[in-house]
Amino acid sequence: MPPPDRTNQTDRSAVVLLSGGLDSATVLAIAKSQGYACHAIAFDYAQRHRHELDAARIVADTMGAGSFRVFPLNIGAFGGSALTDQTLDVPKDRDESAMSTGIPITYVPARNLVFLSIALGLAETLGARDLFIGVNEIDYSGYPDCRPEFIESFQKTANLATSAGVTGDGFTVHTPLIGMGKGDIIACGTELGVDYAITHSCYDPVVHHQEPFACGRCDSCLLRRAGFEQAGVPDPTCYAPSGGTR
Amino acid sequence: MPPPDRTNQTDRSAVVLLSGGLDSATVLAIAKSQGYACHAIAFDYAQRHRHELDAARIVADTMGAGSFRVFPLNIGAFGGSALTDQTLDVPKDRDESAMSTGIPITYVPARNLVFLSIALGLAETLGARDLFIGVNEIDYSGYPDCRPEFIESFQKTANLATSAGVTGDGFTVHTPLIGMGKGDIIACGTELGVDYAITHSCYDPVVHHQEPFACGRCDSCLLRRAGFEQAGVPDPTCYAPSGGTR
Repeated sequence: MPPPDRTNQTDRSAVVLLSGGLDSATVLAIAKSQGYACHAIAFDYAQRHRHELDAARIVADTMGAGSFRVFPLNIGAFGGSALTDQTLDVPKDRDESAMSTGIPITYVPARNLVFLSIALGLAETLGARDLFIGVNEIDYSGYPDCRPEFIESFQKTANLATSAGVTGDGFTVHTPLIGMGKGDIIACGTELGVDYAITHSCYDPVVHHQEPFACGRCDSCLLRRAGFEQAGVPDPTCYAPSGGTR
Repeated sequence: MPPPDRTNQTDRSAVVLLSGGLDSATVLAIAKSQGYACHAIAFDYAQRHRHELDAARIVADTMGAGSFRVFPLNIGAFGGSALTDQTLDVPKDRDESAMSTGIPITYVPARNLVFLSIALGLAETLGARDLFIGVNEIDYSGYPDCRPEFIESFQKTANLATSAGVTGDGFTVHTPLIGMGKGDIIACGTELGVDYAITHSCYDPVVHHQEPFACGRCDSCLLRRAGFEQAGVPDPTCYAPSGGTR
């Protein structure tokens, strides 16, 4: 932050945080378009929407990541979030003003800090000095660990925490989506050839004939659907019959 | 940083990072002496010296921690450290000048950043606002993630990363040993009643009749032994016959 201008460079590797959703798939496409050899890492944190890990693997394979890891991380065991705690309900059918009020119940304590810290350890081991994460404007209206000031502070801490940060070039945390809304992200990814049909965004998918369908009603589904409308791109998402339009 | 003066306060809980070694046992004693209800967390990161996890549990039980968790965390899978990689040798019989030169091969990439980040997530979930970690003067001659400037930066990042940091009191990272050498730590803990016989420091223990014995020759053993001498306290460590004096 700010990211250095290394457009179309070669021989540099990066670690890309991949969730299986459309934001991080777009980030992977951007990092590749800038010439990075990309190592993808996804986190199995006992999330309810576990189909996202299958989607992350498919995204990494389809988009040509150099490696893909699922890192088991039981922060869900601490509780306190609707994304990991089956006793809490995922909010449905909220309008945008409700979504942007306060910190959502889908907040997982310190999640991005933990994810970035582990990705940093991987990057140092691999000799990569660049991390890519898909935080963006919509996220940081609600999640504190998606805001630019958090990312800047993390980068400083990362360069004090590590051998490579102290003795070498230092690490850069890239947030290419930071100023974008969902429509901009989809427009950008579509231009770079991302197939959003293989991505998964729903917080609370419905399984039908062993296939996951997006609920069409959680915050994530509502934002995703609106994003395709804003971008003027057909929405390839398979919605469950009760919540979808297809 | 600097820690607030909350000596002998009550009704405050803290998360204490416990390794099974003498530093973190001393930190637990200090946190308890300041009136905190202490939740201990240890990390199973595929370290070679796994006896430290048994020691951590015994330390937590013996010293009256309110809870104790072992958090599985496979950062060892990334490789690059003699503490987790069986193909690298743990250095032996080094003098102090050799130990204090550069970043040791026992460095694990981003370890304290990852540990503190997870402890922060646990603290937020438990409603605790205080973290205790046993980094100290000797450690930070070699490990970048033990230095005061790292801890200060982490605390800032933690308060930008979390709901409780943004909307509430914020978190404090306590490093009560930061200015102490090993002799001071042992003297302090002895005064607080710590039984160092139950702690484990060796990086490369020798198992004999199913009991772990300290090698007496790795950096950690050499520093520990010198610490007891400096403090004028009898060393209760069980050393393996070839490396020990007992």
